[in-house]
Amino acid sequence: MADTVGSTILVLNGPNLNLLGAREPDVYGTTTLEDIKSAVTEYANTLGMQVDFRQSNTEGELVDWVQSANQTASAVIINAGAYTHTSIAILDALLACGLPVIEVHLSNIFRREEFRHHSYTSQAATGIICGFGAQGYLLALDAAKVTLARP
Amino acid sequence: MADTVGSTILVLNGPNLNLLGAREPDVYGTTTLEDIKSAVTEYANTLGMQVDFRQSNTEGELVDWVQSANQTASAVIINAGAYTHTSIAILDALLACGLPVIEVHLSNIFRREEFRHHSYTSQAATGIICGFGAQGYLLALDAAKVTLARP
Amino acid sequence: MADTVGSTILVLNGPNLNLLGAREPDVYGTTTLEDIKSAVTEYANTLGMQVDFRQSNTEGELVDWVQSANQTASAVIINAGAYTHTSIAILDALLACGLPVIEVHLSNIFRREEFRHHSYTSQAATGIICGFGAQGYLLALDAAKVTLARP
Amino acid sequence: MADTVGSTILVLNGPNLNLLGAREPDVYGTTTLEDIKSAVTEYANTLGMQVDFRQSNTEGELVDWVQSANQTASAVIINAGAYTHTSIAILDALLACGLPVIEVHLSNIFRREEFRHHSYTSQAATGIICGFGAQGYLLALDAAKVTLARP
Amino acid sequence: MADTVGSTILVLNGPNLNLLGAREPDVYGTTTLEDIKSAVTEYANTLGMQVDFRQSNTEGELVDWVQSANQTASAVIINAGAYTHTSIAILDALLACGLPVIEVHLSNIFRREEFRHHSYTSQAATGIICGFGAQGYLLALDAAKVTLARP
Amino acid sequence: MADTVGSTILVLNGPNLNLLGAREPDVYGTTTLEDIKSAVTEYANTLGMQVDFRQSNTEGELVDWVQSANQTASAVIINAGAYTHTSIAILDALLACGLPVIEVHLSNIFRREEFRHHSYTSQAATGIICGFGAQGYLLALDAAKVTLARP
Amino acid sequence: MADTVGSTILVLNGPNLNLLGAREPDVYGTTTLEDIKSAVTEYANTLGMQVDFRQSNTEGELVDWVQSANQTASAVIINAGAYTHTSIAILDALLACGLPVIEVHLSNIFRREEFRHHSYTSQAATGIICGFGAQGYLLALDAAKVTLARP
Amino acid sequence: MADTVGSTILVLNGPNLNLLGAREPDVYGTTTLEDIKSAVTEYANTLGMQVDFRQSNTEGELVDWVQSANQTASAVIINAGAYTHTSIAILDALLACGLPVIEVHLSNIFRREEFRHHSYTSQAATGIICGFGAQGYLLALDAAKVTLARP
Amino acid sequence: MADTVGSTILVLNGPNLNLLGAREPDVYGTTTLEDIKSAVTEYANTLGMQVDFRQSNTEGELVDWVQSANQTASAVIINAGAYTHTSIAILDALLACGLPVIEVHLSNIFRREEFRHHSYTSQAATGIICGFGAQGYLLALDAAKVTLARP
Amino acid sequence: MADTVGSTILVLNGPNLNLLGAREPDVYGTTTLEDIKSAVTEYANTLGMQVDFRQSNTEGELVDWVQSANQTASAVIINAGAYTHTSIAILDALLACGLPVIEVHLSNIFRREEFRHHSYTSQAATGIICGFGAQGYLLALDAAKVTLARP
Amino acid sequence: MADTVGSTILVLNGPNLNLLGAREPDVYGTTTLEDIKSAVTEYANTLGMQVDFRQSNTEGELVDWVQSANQTASAVIINAGAYTHTSIAILDALLACGLPVIEVHLSNIFRREEFRHHSYTSQAATGIICGFGAQGYLLALDAAKVTLARP
Amino acid sequence: MADTVGSTILVLNGPNLNLLGAREPDVYGTTTLEDIKSAVTEYANTLGMQVDFRQSNTEGELVDWVQSANQTASAVIINAGAYTHTSIAILDALLACGLPVIEVHLSNIFRREEFRHHSYTSQAATGIICGFGAQGYLLALDAAKVTLARP
Repeated sequence: MADTVGSTILVLNGPNLNLLGAREPDVYGTTTLEDIKSAVTEYANTLGMQVDFRQSNTEGELVDWVQSANQTASAVIINAGAYTHTSIAILDALLACGLPVIEVHLSNIFRREEFRHHSYTSQAATGIICGFGAQGYLLALDAAKVTLARP
Repeated sequence: MADTVGSTILVLNGPNLNLLGAREPDVYGTTTLEDIKSAVTEYANTLGMQVDFRQSNTEGELVDWVQSANQTASAVIINAGAYTHTSIAILDALLACGLPVIEVHLSNIFRREEFRHHSYTSQAATGIICGFGAQGYLLALDAAKVTLARP
Repeated sequence: MADTVGSTILVLNGPNLNLLGAREPDVYGTTTLEDIKSAVTEYANTLGMQVDFRQSNTEGELVDWVQSANQTASAVIINAGAYTHTSIAILDALLACGLPVIEVHLSNIFRREEFRHHSYTSQAATGIICGFGAQGYLLALDAAKVTLARP
Repeated sequence: MADTVGSTILVLNGPNLNLLGAREPDVYGTTTLEDIKSAVTEYANTLGMQVDFRQSNTEGELVDWVQSANQTASAVIINAGAYTHTSIAILDALLACGLPVIEVHLSNIFRREEFRHHSYTSQAATGIICGFGAQGYLLALDAAKVTLARP
Repeated sequence: MADTVGSTILVLNGPNLNLLGAREPDVYGTTTLEDIKSAVTEYANTLGMQVDFRQSNTEGELVDWVQSANQTASAVIINAGAYTHTSIAILDALLACGLPVIEVHLSNIFRREEFRHHSYTSQAATGIICGFGAQGYLLALDAAKVTLARP
Repeated sequence: MADTVGSTILVLNGPNLNLLGAREPDVYGTTTLEDIKSAVTEYANTLGMQVDFRQSNTEGELVDWVQSANQTASAVIINAGAYTHTSIAILDALLACGLPVIEVHLSNIFRREEFRHHSYTSQAATGIICGFGAQGYLLALDAAKVTLARP
Repeated sequence: MADTVGSTILVLNGPNLNLLGAREPDVYGTTTLEDIKSAVTEYANTLGMQVDFRQSNTEGELVDWVQSANQTASAVIINAGAYTHTSIAILDALLACGLPVIEVHLSNIFRREEFRHHSYTSQAATGIICGFGAQGYLLALDAAKVTLARP
Repeated sequence: MADTVGSTILVLNGPNLNLLGAREPDVYGTTTLEDIKSAVTEYANTLGMQVDFRQSNTEGELVDWVQSANQTASAVIINAGAYTHTSIAILDALLACGLPVIEVHLSNIFRREEFRHHSYTSQAATGIICGFGAQGYLLALDAAKVTLARP
Repeated sequence: MADTVGSTILVLNGPNLNLLGAREPDVYGTTTLEDIKSAVTEYANTLGMQVDFRQSNTEGELVDWVQSANQTASAVIINAGAYTHTSIAILDALLACGLPVIEVHLSNIFRREEFRHHSYTSQAATGIICGFGAQGYLLALDAAKVTLARP
Repeated sequence: MADTVGSTILVLNGPNLNLLGAREPDVYGTTTLEDIKSAVTEYANTLGMQVDFRQSNTEGELVDWVQSANQTASAVIINAGAYTHTSIAILDALLACGLPVIEVHLSNIFRREEFRHHSYTSQAATGIICGFGAQGYLLALDAAKVTLARP
Repeated sequence: MADTVGSTILVLNGPNLNLLGAREPDVYGTTTLEDIKSAVTEYANTLGMQVDFRQSNTEGELVDWVQSANQTASAVIINAGAYTHTSIAILDALLACGLPVIEVHLSNIFRREEFRHHSYTSQAATGIICGFGAQGYLLALDAAKVTLARP
Repeated sequence: MADTVGSTILVLNGPNLNLLGAREPDVYGTTTLEDIKSAVTEYANTLGMQVDFRQSNTEGELVDWVQSANQTASAVIINAGAYTHTSIAILDALLACGLPVIEVHLSNIFRREEFRHHSYTSQAATGIICGFGAQGYLLALDAAKVTLARP
C-alpha cells in the first residue's frame, strides 16, 4: 500500500466559485469559498495531506494549473464550474496530467438545466461527487486518499 | 443539529450486483457484495448508524422496499444498477418516500456506454457518488450522516 | 346492442399507486387507492357491472394479470403508472388480450416532465382519459360501458 | 361545494369537424356534428347545464371565441381538430381565459400519424379525453361538472 | 373511360400568391396571379374543362373552399403557399373532400430554406409539380385531365 | 439623410394581445393594448411620425395588412404574438412588403417555453427588441426613425 | 425565344425501373418501361423533339451518361429510382452538366417510406413532377419544351 | 474440438411468449410455446444436447435465470420478447454469465414498429436469428452446437 | 407441402467479401469466400438443393442478379456487405423479385460501428442470421429449405 | 419611482468587437468601437447617467468584470460577441451579479449562421436588442433607464 | 528508415473528377484531371516514386482497385469525390488493403453543404488534406513519402 | 505571381500543445513543441519565409494574436487544439484578419471522439491538413507558400 502522508492535493475551482455565499444562495448556500478552503485544509491535515487551493475565472489559467499539477501534487480535485460543460481544453489537460482526478459539484447538476447535465471533465475523472455542497470537497479528499493508497 | 445516532440507512442494490466479484472484474474489481455489506455495516457502526442492506434483480421488489423505507430508515443509499437508466418506477418511489436519497455507482458511468450516461434516479437524489468502487458506499454513509445532521 | 349487465371490468394499477394520498399530494391529491377502489366498485354497481381492482409494483405481475384478463373480464381499465412510459411488455400483453382497453391517468401527463409524455400503453388503448384525478376511473367505467355496448 | 346548475359550457370544434359523418368514416364514424350537438345539449340538460356549441375552420375565430368565453361560460370543452397540433394562438387564448379546459378528440390521436401525437392545447387543459368517439363529449360534460363542483 | 369534358377544376392559391409579380421577382418572376388565372382559364377551355380560380390569405377560408369542392368540382389544384408547410387543417380537408388533388409550387421548394422542404398537403396529393413557374398550373391541368380520365 | 417627418408606421399586434392587462399579468403586466396604443401614438407624434395601430387574432388578416403596408406606411413594427413561432405566411408577407420590419415582444421569449424560442418573423426583421414590456414599442419607434433616416 | 425543334432530350431511368409492370404493380401499375419509352418517343415527336431513352442499374453508368449529356442533348429528364435518395455522385454530375434537369417519379414519393422523402437530385433540378405514373414523363417533356424556350 | 455431447442449453423466453398461438396469430403463427418446447427438446436430443426451457413475464426472474446459467448450462438461447428492447438488466446478466448467447426472435423485428428495431440483448449475443418463426429455435441449437465446438 | 428438392438458391455476396480470409481476420476469421462456397455447395447438396454462388463489388451488378433471380432460383440468400447499410436499389430489387430473401452477416453487425446497425435489406428479408461466421450461410440454407416448404 | 440620475451603466463588449469598422464591414458597418463608446457616453450624459465602457477578448476577464459590476454600476449592457453562444461562465456571472442585464447585438443574429441563433446570455437578460447596429447601444441605454426607474 | 525510392503510389479519383476544369470552375478551378495527373507524375518522380493514376465513376470499380492496391502499390492517395460521403464499401476496402491511405479533397468540404461534411473514407485514412486545389495531391505525395519512411 | 520571399507566417498553437511529447504519446508521439518549432523554422527558411511561432492555453490570447496577425504576417497556420471544437471567438478573429488560414491537426481528428469531429476554425480556413503528426506543419508551410503565390 502506497503512503499518502505528505501528499499534496491540488484543489481547483472554476469560474464564479469565488462568489460563493453571495451568488444564488438558494442553490449554493451561504458558505463562502474561503470557508471551504479552511475546511478542506483542516480536514486534509487530519488525513496527513496538504492542499493547494485555487480559483480562476479564466479557462486558460485552469489549463495552466492542471498542466503543472504533476510537478507538485499527487491528485487533482476539480470543480470546474461552468467550464465543466464547455471546456475540452481542461479535459485534455486533465487527461494529460496523469494524476487521479476527482470531480466535485456543489449541487446535483442533473436536477438543474439541461445544459448542465453534460460534463467534459467526467471523461478524465476517476470519480464524481455532486450534490453534497461544501461537504463534497471533504468526501473528495477521502476518495483521493483511498485512490492514492491503491497499489 | 439533529442526532443521527441510531439512524438506520437502507442500502439498496439493483440487478446483477449480487454477481460482484465474478462479473467483469476489470470493470468492477474482485470485491463481492458480501464484502461491501460487511464494510458498510462496520463503517456505519463507527458512525453510530445501522444498515439495512439488500439486493434484488426485480424492479418491483426494489420499488416495494423504497416505498416502505420511511417506516424503518432515515435515508436511502441506492445503487440501482441497470435500473438506474430505465426505471421511472423506482424514481417515483424515491420521490414519494420523502427520505434523503444518495445514489452510488461503483464505476464512473459517464466513461462507459452512452446508454449508461442517463440516470432517472438522479432526479430524486440529494447527491451522487460514482467511480470509487466499494469505497463509494462508505463515502455515501458519510454523506448521509451529514445530510441527516442538517437542521 | 350487447348487454353489459354483469360484466366484470379488470381495473389495474401500476407501481406506486398504492401510495396514493401519501405521495406528492400536490400532484395527486389526498385520495387513497382504497378510496378509489370503493368509489369505482360502488359506481360500477350502479352501472350493473363488477370490478376486479388490483395494484402491483412489478411489471411481470401486471403482464400476468393482463394475460388472463380475457378469462374473467370484459374490459381492462389500466393506470400503468410509470410503466406507461417504459413497458413494451405490458403493451404486448394488452394487444394480445383482445379486450377493450381504457387508459387512465390521475394527472395530465402532458403537463409534467418530458419523459412522461410518451405512452406505450396508448398504442393498445381504445381511448385515454387523463387529468381528472380519481374521477377519471369513473369516466372510464362509463366509457367501458358504452364501448362494450357497441354492436 | 359550488353549484353547477345553470352553468354554460362552451363547446368548441375546430377545422373539418363540420364534415363529420362524411369524412373518413372508418376513422370518425357516421355520426354528424349536428348529432353530437343534439346529444351534448340533451345530456347537458340532464346535468342542469347549458351548452354553447360552435364550430369554425378559422384559427382566429376560435381564438376570438375562447377569449370571450369567460363572459358567458363556466368551462370550455374543446376539440381543436388539426389546430390541436399547430396552434400556439389557441393555447395562449385558453391559458388566458382562466376557465377550466377539457380537451376532447374523437379518435385516439396517439395511434395515428406521428404529427398528431403532439398537442399544444393539452398544455392548457385540466384533462384530456380521446378515443371514445362522440361519447367523449358526454364524458367531458361529466368531467366539467365535477371540475366545476370542486371547492 | 370517364368523360372529363365540362369538368370544373377548383384552383386554389394560398397566402401571398396575390402579390405575384411584385414579390421577390428573382424567385417567382414577374407574372401576376391574374396572368396565371387567364392562362389557366384559357388552357382549361382548350381541354374542355372549366376553372374556378381563387386566392386567400386565410387558412380557414381555404379549408372552407376545399370542403365544398366536391359539390362543384371534379378535382383540386392547390398551391397552398406557406400553408403547405404548416397546415394540417388544409391537409385534413383535402383528405376529406374525396377529389383528386394536384399540388403545385412555382419554385422548386427543395432548393429553398429547410422549412420549405416539408409539405403537409403532399400527404393528400395524387401528385406534385414544382419548379416550373406559372407553367406548373398548365401541367397540373394536363395531369388533372388524365387523372380524371382513369377508369 | 431621408426625412422621416410625416412617416406612418404600421404597428401590428397578433393574437391575444387584445387581452393585455387581463391575461397572465405576472408575465405581461397590467398595461392594456389601448394604453400601449396611446403611448405609441403620443410618442410617435413627438418623433414627427404617425401610427396606424391594429390587432387581429386571424393570421390571414395580419397577412392582408402586411401586404398593403407599403401603400400607406414607411415601416412595420410587429408583435406577431403566437404567430411569431408558427406563421411562414406572415414571414412571406413581411419579406414581400419591402419595408423595414421591427419585431417586438413584450417578454423575453428566450426565457419562456422552448417552442417560443424560434421566430419565423425574425427572418424578415431588421432588428428585434424583446423583454422590455410596453416600452419595447417606444424603442421600436426610435429604431424605426433611425432605420428610415439611413441614406 | 429559343427554338426547341430538333432538340434531343436525354431520358434517364435508374435502378429497377426495367422491372416496371412486373414489380409491385399496386404501387407502379402494369405499364412497362418499354411502354413508357414508346409513349415518350411518340409524344416528343409531336413536340418536335427527339428522345434518347436509357436505363441502368449502375450508379456509375448513370453518372457517365449525365456527364456526356451536354454533347448530345438539350435537357435531362431523370427518374433516378432508388439513387434519387442516396447518390451525391449523380447530383454532382447533374450540377456539372449544365443542362436543365427535370426530375420525375412515378409515385408520390412523399406518401411512401420516410427514407424516400429526401431527394439529392432535386438539388440540381429545375423542377419535379411526381405521382402521375407514366404520364409524368409526358408532363416532363412539356416542361422541358417550355424551359428550353425561355429566353 | 470440444465435445458438445451432453451439453445443456438454457432456452429462455420472455414476456407474453406463453401466449404464443393465441396472440396475434398473423404475426406469430398458431404454434404454441409448448409446441416449440417439444420441437426444441426433440431436436436437441438428435444433436446430443439437452434443453432447459423456461418462460417468465418478469424481468428480474429472467435476470436470476441468466445469472445461474453458467452453473448448469453451456450456452443460452434467449428470446427476451419485449425486454429485448428495454432491459439493460438482462443485458448485464448476459454479459456477466460468460456463456455463448444466441438471440432468437420469431418475427423479423426490423419490419415491425420502430421501437422494436433496437435490441439491448444483441450487445451480449454471439449471433442473432430472427424472422423464421419456431424454426429459429432449431437453427439456434445448430448455431449453439457449432459455437460450443469451436476450439 | 411444397417440394424443395432440386431448388436452386441464389447466394449473393456484396463488396469486399472476395477478400475474406485476408481482410481483418480478427473480425471475419481466416475462412475464404471460396471455402464458404464449397461448404455451402456441399451442404446444399445434402439438402437436395443447388446453389448459384456469386460475388460482386458493384451495386448495380447485384441489382441485376437479384432482378433475374426469379427466373432461375427459388430463394435468395444475401450478404450484401457494406451495401446492406446504404443500398435502397438492392432493397427495391429484393422487394420486386418476389422470392423469399434470407439476410446473412458473418459478424454481429449490432456490436460494430453505429453505421452498420441499420440494414435496408432487412426490410425485404424473411429473416436475418448474423454473427455465426461462415456457418451462418449453412443455417440460411436450412432456413431457406423450411421457408420454401411452407404451404 | 427610483432616481436613475447619476447611475453608472457597465457596458461590456466581448471578443473581436475591438475590430469593429475593420472586420467584415458588410455585416457590421464602418463604425468603430471607439465611435460607439463616444456615442454611448454622450447619450448617457443626456440621460443623466454615466458609462463604464470596456472590451475584452478573454472570457475570464469578462466574468471578472461582471462579478464586480454590482459594486460600481446599476445595470449591465452586454454584447458578449462570440461568447454569447458558448459561455455558461458569463451567464452564471450575470445571474449572480443581481443587476438588470440588457443584451445587445449589432446584427440580427437570427439571420446569420445557425450556431449564432442560440444565446446563453439571454437566460440572464431582462431584454434583448439586436439588428440595429451601433444604435442598439443607445436603445439599450433607454431601456436601462426605464428598467431602473421601475418601482 | 525504410527506403521509399521506387515506391508506387496508387492515386484514385472518384465520380465526376474527370470533369475537372469544366465543372463548377468557381468551386474547383480550371485545372483538368489530366493536368493534375501530369503534375502528380512529375512531382512523384522528383521524390523517387511512381504513380498509378486512375479515375472511375463506378463505386464498385474503385473498390476493385483498392482491393488490389497492395499487390502493386505502397500507399493509396484517394479523392473519392461524392463517394467520400456515402460509400461504406470503399471504406471497407481501404480498411482491408492494409496500406497507408491519404485522403485528398480539392475544396474545403467543411465550408460546403452539410452533407459533404461527413466522410466515411476518413475512418480509414492516415491523414486528410483538403482545400488546396490541385496542390493537395502534391502535398499528399509528400505526406506519403514521410509516412512510408516511418520505421 | 506574388513574391513570397520574406513573408512571415504566424504559427499558432492552442491549449495543451505545450505538453507535446509528454501527453498521450500513443496519440501524439514523442516530438515536443520545441522540436516542431525548430523544424518549422528551419523549413520555412529553406522556403525563404520566416515564422512567428507561439502557443497559448488561453482562448482570449489566441484571439488577440490572430487579430494583430495582419500587421506582421502574410498567413496564419493554426492548430487551435481543443478550441478548434468550441471557439467561435477564434473563428470570428480568423474571419476578420483577412489572411489565408491553414488549419493543422497532429492526429486525424475524425478517428477520435465524436466531439472532436466538428471544427469551428475550418469555417475560416483555406484548407485543412490533419493526421500527419509534426510533418503536418511542414506541409502547411508548403501550402501557405503556394496559396500566397496565387495571383
